[in-house]
Amino acid sequence: MNLMPLVFDRFEHYVKNQAPKVASFHPHFEDALWEMVLNGGKRFRPQLLLSIVASYKPKMLEKAFAPALALEILHTYSLIHDDLPAMDDAPLRRGCQTLHTKYGETSAILAGDGLNTHAFYLLTKAKLKPKTKVKLIQCLSYNGGIYGMVLGQALDCYFEHQKLPLKQLRFIHLNKTAKLIAASLQMGGILADCDKKTRKSLYKLGLDLGLFFQIRDDIIDTTQSEQEAGKPTQQDTDKNSYVNLLGLEGAKKEAKNLSDSILTQFKTLNPKANKILNELLSHYFIF
Amino acid sequence: MNLMPLVFDRFEHYVKNQAPKVASFHPHFEDALWEMVLNGGKRFRPQLLLSIVASYKPKMLEKAFAPALALEILHTYSLIHDDLPAMDDAPLRRGCQTLHTKYGETSAILAGDGLNTHAFYLLTKAKLKPKTKVKLIQCLSYNGGIYGMVLGQALDCYFEHQKLPLKQLRFIHLNKTAKLIAASLQMGGILADCDKKTRKSLYKLGLDLGLFFQIRDDIIDTTQSEQEAGKPTQQDTDKNSYVNLLGLEGAKKEAKNLSDSILTQFKTLNPKANKILNELLSHYFIF
Repeated sequence: MNLMPLVFDRFEHYVKNQAPKVASFHPHFEDALWEMVLNGGKRFRPQLLLSIVASYKPKMLEKAFAPALALEILHTYSLIHDDLPAMDDAPLRRGCQTLHTKYGETSAILAGDGLNTHAFYLLTKAKLKPKTKVKLIQCLSYNGGIYGMVLGQALDCYFEHQKLPLKQLRFIHLNKTAKLIAASLQMGGILADCDKKTRKSLYKLGLDLGLFFQIRDDIIDTTQSEQEAGKPTQQDTDKNSYVNLLGLEGAKKEAKNLSDSILTQFKTLNPKANKILNELLSHYFIF
Repeated sequence: MNLMPLVFDRFEHYVKNQAPKVASFHPHFEDALWEMVLNGGKRFRPQLLLSIVASYKPKMLEKAFAPALALEILHTYSLIHDDLPAMDDAPLRRGCQTLHTKYGETSAILAGDGLNTHAFYLLTKAKLKPKTKVKLIQCLSYNGGIYGMVLGQALDCYFEHQKLPLKQLRFIHLNKTAKLIAASLQMGGILADCDKKTRKSLYKLGLDLGLFFQIRDDIIDTTQSEQEAGKPTQQDTDKNSYVNLLGLEGAKKEAKNLSDSILTQFKTLNPKANKILNELLSHYFIF
């Protein structure tokens, strides 16, 4: 029996109960702070982390919820800031008003800032050994900061109107998207006390997964209607995208190569991880 | 002989050599990232931290530089974001262009985000025991995040155009300014392995210091010219400020009470700390 949907349901329930109680004389900031965390999304990164823990050390699952939440709220802050007028200027996210549209730009910047910092506070409060906490904080701050996600986002914005060669586009996506996904798997590996070799394999797998998802998004943007994709499409026509650089067929071939490699990498993990990751991810590999 | 100026000089030299080497195909982000860290300021928070370490465990001074830098870059990110168009919309900071004026708003938001996260990365890399690192990260993320600085800033912005009672104004300043100053002294206490009672006293002293500096700033804004103060003054005339709430004499009395209490608290610390903190701070108590 596949227990992961139950674990993910429990995690979702956990998230709803973790809104921080901020002692203040006014609820405005507190409301803004947790709204985007509650307003769901797929919890893709926590699911990756929890899948690895469930595969390698299921008895750690309970203690993995706090780090999974830390990962999710770091991701959430990045979405709040990505949506800002100075970045994507997006009115909607997941079908709802973006945070700055509802609460104003100032509150959105500060809610993002607060969640960024709070991710690390949560990790210090987790029921884990200090050594494990430090490893998790290091992994998250490296991949989610200036050596990863923030660098990628900065380059992506800076070169928005300049055509880049494939190598540089890949560098941007590796940093902007793939490194936090790699960190999700690696944090799972840290929590499950996997050996160094497995943690390294998990990280490499996460980078490939991140790149795959980026190419897949570019393909979906070109080929699907807004209704099919569940989000606005045809947005990338003048952007740096794999489809624009490689053509649709070239991008599809690249995606196929990556998904083949990913499925092969699944098999190098333990049988349980192979099974759980296949169940979680392999439907993404058909499009 | 007073060795602290030498320590502070060494710290300044250290900061200049700590610009992170970000592997990228373009230097834009890296340039933006470290510019405000280099563009000085008084390094007030690191000086507080280093003063406590020098007083209670001088052999830890070398290892205290990384945490002192983490504290400074968290403070720096907050200045970068405070200056943004959606907040103070400031063209100048410390006599130089603000980061968003020079590099654009997008880069300034991201440089701030990156520095916020990087503060915690730096703490994980410090040459300290895991347990000490976790304590420092917890102290910084609690006081510099949604339970402290970010909450205070959010409330300050939200109530910018509403007159607040003294209790609420004090709550804002306690969070926005005082808690990070309290964290500076407490992080010093953690590094010097001070007992719980001393760490608590240091924290309380920091809160009072933070409030004192806020009232002092309000008084200077009212009484000094731009030339005397070294920064634009007469900015707070329609703002929530101690002078507007208590009148100039009332604010001066409040500042005097606080500085008296602070000097008394210095005396409860060890003689070296009393001496160093007096040398560092007592000239602020005359105005």
